Amino acid sequence: MARVIVDVMPKPEILDPQGKAVTGALGRLGFPGLSVRQGKRFEIEVDGDVTEERLAEVREAAERLLANTVIENFDVRVEE
Amino acid sequence: MARVIVDVMPKPEILDPQGKAVTGALGRLGFPGLSVRQGKRFEIEVDGDVTEERLAEVREAAERLLANTVIENFDVRVEE
Repeated sequence: MARVIVDVMPKPEILDPQGKAVTGALGRLGFPGLSVRQGKRFEIEVDGDVTEERLAEVREAAERLLANTVIENFDVRVEE
Repeated sequence: MARVIVDVMPKPEILDPQGKAVTGALGRLGFPGLSVRQGKRFEIEVDGDVTEERLAEVREAAERLLANTVIENFDVRVEE
């Protein structure tokens, strides 16, 4: 059973209110000088081997379901 | 400006309803054989160098604010 990681982050030019809220909360809790952007991480267990075709399938799934590509970028990689 | 990544995932023994929903949706959309767990990814820009002390600070922030350590594990690493 192999594992593929999909990271989904708001595009740099898109406002990230969650990240802004976390950044503000960290400052108030005594952790200044940290600027946070918040996204999603998906750990996907793939049945069988991760072939190029399987990986292409995961990439298509990420594009269609996991990320909103209007406002988010995503990155797909096989976990070492 | 250095970047630290904090990944927050539901603990293995904890039910993950978001992941279950995504797994089901992928199956219905024609992507069977994928089992998903969903967590959060934080990209943190740290002012100045990432020293051991700064990294310890980020780790404390992750534990106190970014993760709910009752139900979630987190991992802190400096981005290469």
